Amino acid sequence: MTLHAQVEKVEPPFWWSAMNLPELQVMFYGNNIAQYDVQASEGVIINNIRKTENPNYIFVTINSGEIPAGNIEFIFRKGKKKVFSETFEFREREEGSALREGFDASDVLYLIMPDRFANGDPSNDSHPELTEKVNRSLQGGRHGGDIQGIIDNLDYIQDLGATAIWSTPLLEDDDPKYSYHTYAQSDVYRIDPRYGSNDDYRRLADEMHDRDMKLIMDYVTNHWGAEHWMIKDLPTYNWVHQFPGYRNSNYRMTTQFDPHKADIDRKLNEDGWFTSTMPDLNQSNPLVLNYLIQNAIWWIEFADLDGFRVDTYSYNEKEGIAEWTKTIMNEYPHFNIVGEVWMHDQAQISYWQKDSPVGAIDSYNTGLPAVMDFTLHDAITGMFDQDEQGYADGMVRAYDNFANDFLYADIYNLLVFAGNHDTGRINEIYDGDLEKYKLALTLVLTTRGIPQLYYGDEIGMRGEKATGDGDIRRDFPGGWNNDEQSAFTKAGRTATQEAYHSFTKKLLNYRKESKVLHNGKLLQYVPEENVYVYFRFNEEDRVMVVINNSPEERELDLVRFTEGLKGAQSGNEVISGNRISLQDSLKITGKSSMVIEL
Amino acid sequence: MTLHAQVEKVEPPFWWSAMNLPELQVMFYGNNIAQYDVQASEGVIINNIRKTENPNYIFVTINSGEIPAGNIEFIFRKGKKKVFSETFEFREREEGSALREGFDASDVLYLIMPDRFANGDPSNDSHPELTEKVNRSLQGGRHGGDIQGIIDNLDYIQDLGATAIWSTPLLEDDDPKYSYHTYAQSDVYRIDPRYGSNDDYRRLADEMHDRDMKLIMDYVTNHWGAEHWMIKDLPTYNWVHQFPGYRNSNYRMTTQFDPHKADIDRKLNEDGWFTSTMPDLNQSNPLVLNYLIQNAIWWIEFADLDGFRVDTYSYNEKEGIAEWTKTIMNEYPHFNIVGEVWMHDQAQISYWQKDSPVGAIDSYNTGLPAVMDFTLHDAITGMFDQDEQGYADGMVRAYDNFANDFLYADIYNLLVFAGNHDTGRINEIYDGDLEKYKLALTLVLTTRGIPQLYYGDEIGMRGEKATGDGDIRRDFPGGWNNDEQSAFTKAGRTATQEAYHSFTKKLLNYRKESKVLHNGKLLQYVPEENVYVYFRFNEEDRVMVVINNSPEERELDLVRFTEGLKGAQSGNEVISGNRISLQDSLKITGKSSMVIEL
Repeated sequence: MTLHAQVEKVEPPFWWSAMNLPELQVMFYGNNIAQYDVQASEGVIINNIRKTENPNYIFVTINSGEIPAGNIEFIFRKGKKKVFSETFEFREREEGSALREGFDASDVLYLIMPDRFANGDPSNDSHPELTEKVNRSLQGGRHGGDIQGIIDNLDYIQDLGATAIWSTPLLEDDDPKYSYHTYAQSDVYRIDPRYGSNDDYRRLADEMHDRDMKLIMDYVTNHWGAEHWMIKDLPTYNWVHQFPGYRNSNYRMTTQFDPHKADIDRKLNEDGWFTSTMPDLNQSNPLVLNYLIQNAIWWIEFADLDGFRVDTYSYNEKEGIAEWTKTIMNEYPHFNIVGEVWMHDQAQISYWQKDSPVGAIDSYNTGLPAVMDFTLHDAITGMFDQDEQGYADGMVRAYDNFANDFLYADIYNLLVFAGNHDTGRINEIYDGDLEKYKLALTLVLTTRGIPQLYYGDEIGMRGEKATGDGDIRRDFPGGWNNDEQSAFTKAGRTATQEAYHSFTKKLLNYRKESKVLHNGKLLQYVPEENVYVYFRFNEEDRVMVVINNSPEERELDLVRFTEGLKGAQSGNEVISGNRISLQDSLKITGKSSMVIEL
Repeated sequence: MTLHAQVEKVEPPFWWSAMNLPELQVMFYGNNIAQYDVQASEGVIINNIRKTENPNYIFVTINSGEIPAGNIEFIFRKGKKKVFSETFEFREREEGSALREGFDASDVLYLIMPDRFANGDPSNDSHPELTEKVNRSLQGGRHGGDIQGIIDNLDYIQDLGATAIWSTPLLEDDDPKYSYHTYAQSDVYRIDPRYGSNDDYRRLADEMHDRDMKLIMDYVTNHWGAEHWMIKDLPTYNWVHQFPGYRNSNYRMTTQFDPHKADIDRKLNEDGWFTSTMPDLNQSNPLVLNYLIQNAIWWIEFADLDGFRVDTYSYNEKEGIAEWTKTIMNEYPHFNIVGEVWMHDQAQISYWQKDSPVGAIDSYNTGLPAVMDFTLHDAITGMFDQDEQGYADGMVRAYDNFANDFLYADIYNLLVFAGNHDTGRINEIYDGDLEKYKLALTLVLTTRGIPQLYYGDEIGMRGEKATGDGDIRRDFPGGWNNDEQSAFTKAGRTATQEAYHSFTKKLLNYRKESKVLHNGKLLQYVPEENVYVYFRFNEEDRVMVVINNSPEERELDLVRFTEGLKGAQSGNEVISGNRISLQDSLKITGKSSMVIEL
């Protein structure tokens, strides 16, 4: 697309024919562009032309549903005189695009912070157009990791047994500092050139699909960066939330449902800014909401995505984010989207999931298929240090979490995890205790839901949240050419790294083939003496999981587990590879787990 | 009623005409009584005669709805020969009985442990028929308190400003030890003679009604004592839950809704015994359930009750306890029943309330009007020691509790309390800090729901749960003739006791007249700097409550509270009695509260 001199940007830059969405809002940006009238080429119906208080924008909404692949024209006139025209392309959709299958409980997500994973292309570490330059010695600086680095290590991730990648955001973030986290975006139609190009991102998806793997984009609906080009030349005053000017969010997501909330508190949560460098988008402005919906769909279609992870989902405007979500799911009914709903109460988390019985209390329905099991994360990051079972301590914390599953509409669409890029590292919390990591991983990989690993956990990576977010986002060893050591290969891993890796790989690859761990029902027993026993089962298969969180060896009387065992007399223990007798009793050593195929 | 020599017991001993319940199950007990056939006098229809494996019982179910006041006869025959007959009385109901109004949010409940409150009749401290004798020197022994002691001090309770009494159970408990707590009952148609007679209990109700006060009976549906006469001669093997024999409850109430529960765990919770001395009643046996329903109704009608508190509500069989509750509420549609649902999660507590949106997820509806706000209790017993506000600490704990109120069907039917006979004493937890007591009491008395006080808290009574339950149930000073000191009178109270008492009395008596504190809506603000501000309001009135849990003086910018203040420029501060300006800002000293009538 070549733009006429008076047009600096057209967004979306192109679109597709045969989409479900009936309309398309095309935004033209250029100096004083609003002085023109706009017409479309023959056969294209304009439903609406919206000019704002900023003469540099025109929003033209057309009937896009019936437009065939090919080019259309937008003609800009002054009075009766045609001044210039812009060509706009409708592409042919790829086959099966609408019915693409999103990630699900058969997957395991591998979460990557791309700046910190692997530097596949050192030539793009800095970029002339973007302010922050590479500085690997800075904890909060850019280290140079990129899309090519991910592509280069797809074999590693596949071999490990993960089936999907959630990468933290890759779109342009021109913040002068801390831009590596990339949640303060400055152009949402462009991959940050320090990570690669839009085409590189699509190439990553293609490489993954060739391996039967899935790519999940981290999408940010709530805010943009202060350096976003539109923030610096606002289309409308209310494109972002203004009080007037800046107010911080109070981070009180409870105001989204509290029947007693003060309106000022609700407004501050939804409309306050996450930080001063992240202007909060006003989704009650239809221009904004349409822009965000179209941008999201554009990336699915362009990059052939398999899912979204949505940042700070519960800080968005309630009605706006529900419409965003439902519109996307309506376009791609088998897609998946998981929202970050960082709360510590199952009812509050459930509230945000599609068809939630808890949301229904409030007549609220986001349409969001998947949410994150943060209460399980709370349990996982504490209970393995509790050697003694209390009424609510030790393995009871896991048990209690699942007991509340009746509050969820879809327990198979809960993301289960021991940590992510915003939390303490699991191997720091447990002070490098491999046995505790194994207990956590066993639980994450065998309970209901969609497991998510955080890059580096599989080699025992450490990092202290209190030291700074950069410390929980250390560089993966071997991702940089001059690294002393590479954990990407068995030969390169230290003995400790290999111990973590081999356990992770074994269990992940087992899970990959075990359908009953994907979609089987869960049957759980009240923990006794800090031993938690549960079963996953379907019509064909049964798996028994035993997690002994006590440092002592335990002997279980198996009579109690009759309902789960269903007559099984023996089973294959996956971790040891041993055949195990299940007559009468079962011994399990302290701080260890068993996964037994019945 | 005089019984024929062959009949030891008839239960219920009498009944009432014009009840809503259409049937009555009359139980006859006597040596080998099942050898007889039973007929009823003319006009009385027998629907069912049930004999069990124990020949000492006959259960006769009659059509009782249409039987007028007066006597009917049950004729016991052997073949064609009439051996004897029993007269059974139907009494006239008192006017308004069916439409009696239960306790509600206009009330404040004063919880008494009768053995420990006041000994009004020293002659009944021990009783020849009952095993355990008085021993006031024993922490877990009987101290001699009784119904007359409560009656003698009704003026004290009324003057304090409470409007209702919940007394822990008064029915006969013939356990050889620890019988004073009286939850292990041995005859549920008889007030324990060490507390007084059935007529004394009715007299207590009458005395209270003369004062416009309400009487709430503590009812135990889940279990009886091992010494219950029917337990010692079981009507049917399955009158109680047997495994066979004894198994303890696992106390896992989560199994009542956990979709993944193992059946053995569910059964142990519901059917396991609370302790070995408390056999667990089998409510799925209709004979048992009818017995419990009729017994409860009998006490409402006989003693003219205003409500029940139901012990261990969530340990009962789910279907049984719902039928028990609904049948009673159907008989008395304006009655009130509050269930002990001791959980630490609002969704789990809400589950048990009538028409709960959370229960509805499970298609479960108890019909129980009121539940206990145990999560608020959790907050109250910790947060006043937290001088600094954290994201989830300090006054935020109260705020967060109310934010989840959307999970409840009826927030005005939540019992709010700082302690009860099973928990740590609030003044022990806060180490006798009067200011913290005042903060707790302000919250309990001004938030939504039905406040409940625990006897003695109003004079700063101490007692450590860890030392033993007896220690949190110390004798009220002045309840015994030879007590050195009496806290029942102003003259008798120490300066410290009077400081607690006068604050309590002032706020209770204010609340009694403040309709907006009974049924007004709640509007709450996110706490800032450990100061929690909320409003109660209706069409006519508004009250602003400010709780400063910081030790520092705070000055509030009142602009933030515009929605709550609704233009008010000044108000009457209830605790100090001062007129307060509400222009611009409000100062409040550290660790203090204000209740401001706008």
